[in-house]
Amino acid sequence: MKKLLRILPFAAALWALLALAQTNEPANDWKPAPSNQPGKEYPKVNSEGRVKFRIVATNAQSVGVTFRDSSPFAKGEDGAWYGFTRPLDEGFHYYSIKIDGAEVPDPSSRMFFGAQRWGSAVEVPAKDAEFYAVMNVPQGQLRELFFYSKSSDSMRRAFVYTPPGYDQSPDKRYPVLYLQHGWGENEYGWGVQGHAREIMDNLIAENKARPFIIVMVYGMTNDTQPGGLRNFDIGPFETVLIQELIPFIDSNFRTLSDQLHRAMAGLSMGGMETKTITLKHLDTFSHIGLFSGGSIAVTNITDLVAFKASNKLVFVSYGSRELGNNRGGDPKANVEALEAAGINSRFYVSPDTAHEWQSWRRSLHEFAPLLFKR
Amino acid sequence: MKKLLRILPFAAALWALLALAQTNEPANDWKPAPSNQPGKEYPKVNSEGRVKFRIVATNAQSVGVTFRDSSPFAKGEDGAWYGFTRPLDEGFHYYSIKIDGAEVPDPSSRMFFGAQRWGSAVEVPAKDAEFYAVMNVPQGQLRELFFYSKSSDSMRRAFVYTPPGYDQSPDKRYPVLYLQHGWGENEYGWGVQGHAREIMDNLIAENKARPFIIVMVYGMTNDTQPGGLRNFDIGPFETVLIQELIPFIDSNFRTLSDQLHRAMAGLSMGGMETKTITLKHLDTFSHIGLFSGGSIAVTNITDLVAFKASNKLVFVSYGSRELGNNRGGDPKANVEALEAAGINSRFYVSPDTAHEWQSWRRSLHEFAPLLFKR
Repeated sequence: MKKLLRILPFAAALWALLALAQTNEPANDWKPAPSNQPGKEYPKVNSEGRVKFRIVATNAQSVGVTFRDSSPFAKGEDGAWYGFTRPLDEGFHYYSIKIDGAEVPDPSSRMFFGAQRWGSAVEVPAKDAEFYAVMNVPQGQLRELFFYSKSSDSMRRAFVYTPPGYDQSPDKRYPVLYLQHGWGENEYGWGVQGHAREIMDNLIAENKARPFIIVMVYGMTNDTQPGGLRNFDIGPFETVLIQELIPFIDSNFRTLSDQLHRAMAGLSMGGMETKTITLKHLDTFSHIGLFSGGSIAVTNITDLVAFKASNKLVFVSYGSRELGNNRGGDPKANVEALEAAGINSRFYVSPDTAHEWQSWRRSLHEFAPLLFKR
Repeated sequence: MKKLLRILPFAAALWALLALAQTNEPANDWKPAPSNQPGKEYPKVNSEGRVKFRIVATNAQSVGVTFRDSSPFAKGEDGAWYGFTRPLDEGFHYYSIKIDGAEVPDPSSRMFFGAQRWGSAVEVPAKDAEFYAVMNVPQGQLRELFFYSKSSDSMRRAFVYTPPGYDQSPDKRYPVLYLQHGWGENEYGWGVQGHAREIMDNLIAENKARPFIIVMVYGMTNDTQPGGLRNFDIGPFETVLIQELIPFIDSNFRTLSDQLHRAMAGLSMGGMETKTITLKHLDTFSHIGLFSGGSIAVTNITDLVAFKASNKLVFVSYGSRELGNNRGGDPKANVEALEAAGINSRFYVSPDTAHEWQSWRRSLHEFAPLLFKR
């Protein structure tokens, strides 16, 4: 009897848990996602981070979304199909809808380039969303332009962020950050879902970062069939970046064009590119940022004396949910070893996020204040 | 017999025609559309202007596109659905794909805002496509920025085209064109499918247009449910444009800020807005462009003397296939009456195009060289 009494609370708790799992009723506080097309009610997000969809496909046999572990989709009284996801991490997630074997963009979502296509994505509002929101502060500009690349004999698109006040201070010169997207993404990523413009405007308004220029360009120059990672060759991109884009930017924008005032960072594959290119061009870049894109071991550095003399910062970051998946050694240990070797290094972990944009928005937000400090 | 001989050629011609209609084989010279997502083979366009689609929807009962008079869609050997359109006009056409009652974006198309949504569209290459292509000429920039609007208490997006050399000539000032999209579209339209940047860069490179700034902003300011034309009120937009955006542009860009150097133009609904606002603000705008958006009758002008003294150009254009659908009088006759009244006016008809972007690209291309001439 005494034993039974001891077990009882656990049994009751277990029973309650099972009941909850069985009913599995999502919290009924759905709000339209900020990533929706203008005027669209769905997709909606609730306080658990679940996303609920409404898909009109009157004669379909089967409807769903690409999020794993979603609820079954069923027809509502209005004839549309409804279903919802498991709780998702805060931040930005690509997805498609599925209709009778087709995988297509959700017509209710705005369109983003990632996962190798322009398609739908949903924003699960984050508690810290304000740092990348459009605020009523002095505004920078995101400029779309094309430059001629001789090595690829093509006009190539770049986006250039100029900080607030750039046009009003014709005698002022600015440092530059070259900022790369990840695999399956393109030069739009940082300006659209990455909110680089908003992040910088807000940091500068709070006097937390020095105003600098950001340049964003496509990082798979040799890629004729987008996404072909197997045939990826960093050479053509390195040529475009070092020999063509940097001189173009330095002659068309008011840059501080010395090594001390030039940084490179990238996410995922863009981090790999950053590592390869910055280690090879110590005279070109002084600040390095790797966001979910590997780390630099002391043994990666050929000439430690030269590196220590020229480098001002190595920043390495990951989402907490992707730590442990790292190839190329433990990033935290690598950063600590750099520190021990006398190199100014930082390690940042984005709480409760995976290999996704919320990790990279936060990474830029942590990285930018460290740049170009005397 | 003589009668039969006379009829025979007609009969033969009729028979040939019927045979052609029955086989209806599209020309087999399909090429990927320039509007496709990177690396996508389909949709394809042939020399007749037909568009052929490939849609993967393995378990669907019925697949199609929103283009009227398209062929039935049928499954090919690879299990994907194939079908094609009637010959379409050269230029840019919005569409959606249909799968078992769903209307969704074609995942093979890039995404454009129009018809009140971000969705798919196809570009049927035009013979004159070069005037809006990215060429290796001095490049302008398309700048995305936000400005605070007091009247709507919101941060509002604008796109600003700055001509080649803008950053390199810090003492030079430029005229400004305010350029509006149509109903169901937004501030992205002119910069994306309208190719305003490319049109201007190419005209300036050929010394056919004076370099000027173009400003593009959303024209349905009061619209909370996008596309609600029934409740459209031009007042809030007029306030944003006249009281907020123009002063913002004049203080943040190197403009020539007098009436002589400020123009307004728009397409369709944007033409209606242009007409209403320019006629009301003679002291603000000197050049007027209405693209498929009505015309100005002499009787529309309250004070003809004042108008003649202040206005430098009234430009009216239409696509040839939409002429005859005009409300508000015959546009050609209205332009001729303006000319007769001593007002510098032009009427332009885009050959073989309807109420679509090819008419408006050509209209800007014809309009821009006429602007800000002394």
